[in-house]
Amino acid sequence: MNPISHEIIFAQEIRDRIKKVVGDSPVSLHEPTFEGNEWRYLRECLDSGYVSSIGEFVNRFEEALAEFTGAKYAVAVVNGTEALHIALKLSGVRPGDEVLVPALTFVATANAVTYCGAIPHFVDSEELHLGIDAEKLRSYLASIASRQSDQTVNKETGRAIKAMVPMHTFGHPSNMDALLEVAEEFSITLVEDAAESIGSIYKSRHTGTFGLTAALSFNGNKTITSGGGGAILTSDETLAQRARHLTQTARLKHSWEFIHDDIGYNYRMPNLNAALGLAQLEQLPGKLKMKRKLFLAYKEVFAGMRGLKVFEEPEDTVSNYWLQTIILEEENEDLKNDVLKLTNESGITTRPAWMLISNLSPYERNPRMKLACSSSLSKRIINIPSSPNLVEKK
Amino acid sequence: MNPISHEIIFAQEIRDRIKKVVGDSPVSLHEPTFEGNEWRYLRECLDSGYVSSIGEFVNRFEEALAEFTGAKYAVAVVNGTEALHIALKLSGVRPGDEVLVPALTFVATANAVTYCGAIPHFVDSEELHLGIDAEKLRSYLASIASRQSDQTVNKETGRAIKAMVPMHTFGHPSNMDALLEVAEEFSITLVEDAAESIGSIYKSRHTGTFGLTAALSFNGNKTITSGGGGAILTSDETLAQRARHLTQTARLKHSWEFIHDDIGYNYRMPNLNAALGLAQLEQLPGKLKMKRKLFLAYKEVFAGMRGLKVFEEPEDTVSNYWLQTIILEEENEDLKNDVLKLTNESGITTRPAWMLISNLSPYERNPRMKLACSSSLSKRIINIPSSPNLVEKK
Repeated sequence: MNPISHEIIFAQEIRDRIKKVVGDSPVSLHEPTFEGNEWRYLRECLDSGYVSSIGEFVNRFEEALAEFTGAKYAVAVVNGTEALHIALKLSGVRPGDEVLVPALTFVATANAVTYCGAIPHFVDSEELHLGIDAEKLRSYLASIASRQSDQTVNKETGRAIKAMVPMHTFGHPSNMDALLEVAEEFSITLVEDAAESIGSIYKSRHTGTFGLTAALSFNGNKTITSGGGGAILTSDETLAQRARHLTQTARLKHSWEFIHDDIGYNYRMPNLNAALGLAQLEQLPGKLKMKRKLFLAYKEVFAGMRGLKVFEEPEDTVSNYWLQTIILEEENEDLKNDVLKLTNESGITTRPAWMLISNLSPYERNPRMKLACSSSLSKRIINIPSSPNLVEKK
Repeated sequence: MNPISHEIIFAQEIRDRIKKVVGDSPVSLHEPTFEGNEWRYLRECLDSGYVSSIGEFVNRFEEALAEFTGAKYAVAVVNGTEALHIALKLSGVRPGDEVLVPALTFVATANAVTYCGAIPHFVDSEELHLGIDAEKLRSYLASIASRQSDQTVNKETGRAIKAMVPMHTFGHPSNMDALLEVAEEFSITLVEDAAESIGSIYKSRHTGTFGLTAALSFNGNKTITSGGGGAILTSDETLAQRARHLTQTARLKHSWEFIHDDIGYNYRMPNLNAALGLAQLEQLPGKLKMKRKLFLAYKEVFAGMRGLKVFEEPEDTVSNYWLQTIILEEENEDLKNDVLKLTNESGITTRPAWMLISNLSPYERNPRMKLACSSSLSKRIINIPSSPNLVEKK
């Protein structure tokens, strides 16, 4: 008989501790729950006849999002990817520009840059916030870029480095003060990818309100969902108007003529999806409480286990804990696949962080800094079941 | 006292004849009705927990669309514009190519070409089908283009003329046999913009099954709606698989790793919208009958009125009559705005054809042939109330 290996023992221990929190039944990574006005609003939407890009729920959802986040304006669109596409465009990203994006993110962050005809330039993350490492970025820019009139230019490629896109990984806020400083120092526009971070706060301000523009997502796996959906946030009235214009085919107001003054997009969120989104948004405070309780439960059961840590929001931030995260210690990075295999085989859905997008074939030749920390994190992160309904409402 | 002008008398006569069909209450141009399984399917969708890009309704909707249209494959996406974007990309349209599109169409036809980095090249329409004029196109290509190996090149710009996009205007099928002949003669790929023509038939085949790929739309103003939505049609298995892949972020199948092998898109239709779409599709045959009855009612009340005709499907086509269409005679084109003004002021929503997109500022410098017929049609077309529920179900 083979002795049970060290790897299996480690994986079993993780599985068993997770089970103490979530129980013995199979659990998914994150699933939505519909416990509020979802039915009522969908019915109202259908009864109104307005299920498409015009309707009361789109306006109500946008107003509620602006109020909740503290952004002056929210513009609801079909998903977070397209929200980021338009957010970047509105922030002045033009074909041939470079845009700084973390290598440790979902591929949509880079794709949105590509849709603008711009070039994702990959930067490293830090382990405290899981977001872009501002200090490393400052040194890197100082060495590879030069200031030319009012912009920063990559000396090697000759292209303007126009924007940076902090992404709040798994909902945990990036270190915004430090990133804003670097952005200002180099005249780089800050656009936030807040797709994962609705409800997450950095120093009393909601994520998505630090950039000139930002993108939210309401995909089915997010903290709240509109089926598919996203929103552009901004506090600039002109940009908000432009967001509405561009996402509705750039059509000018006229009683009946079809006059479009720009290349527009058909990105407006349908009223049907906004009805669902609004009902979900009303329940967000409750979901956030439950997600925090879930984090505390994981923190407690993993206390004292060696070889990993449960990620905890750093000081000055309040995370939505969208995806609960354990980070293996460096000497245990080889155990990641054992843990993923055993937990998933046991009905506990877990997943690793994304493969660094700088390593994906469409982006493998893009400019990048040394990605030591992102690379290490990518080998050590495991997301564990995170649905708010995994803990009792109390 | 001023005598009533000729213009007002003409407009009043049109308004009064429309009223004989639709009654005296205010009517919109086209509004959806929900009289089948909409509510049940939405409820089932919510109860399943799958409201987003995975779910039973997306698959069922796609299968039902393939069966209804006779295309082998249907891939459901967020809207018709993005469906056409991917349809063009799949058909080999590359940055710098030219794509032939009618000048008389909704702006999305050209925008989808632009999203591919390609250049819309505007061509004229003919009055019998309201689609691209195949004969004029043949002469035009013979004069401006040259054959180089297996492609046709615009001699003036040096760019390949890669594809043509017939659009079935207001649901009325274009003259597909003639267009297919020209496409073959010049090795130009045919991609159909069937956004308006679900349920429309050309010589026993559903529109959207003639091109290598095609796009449908289920926007709220269309014959059937999924809130927002569209679909890519193709009978090529490889292209269908590629459509699914590209519209779901180009992610490779893997238990947990995120590997994306191309620049993908987040275009998949949410299950919530597919639930609505499926319920609507089940009712399509009934809606088509009612739209045909409405056409016949308009045809009857306008019989004998001089100065205009009600557009009737040409031989060999069966139109869905998405938007009922009257076409003023050339000597009456100056009366169009009087008619639009009076009818809309009387609560009868009418609208003109689109301004030619070749005249819109983003496209005013694009290549084009002489657009005599499109230009004339654009001045003479008026769409009148077209909702299927305007006539009794019998």
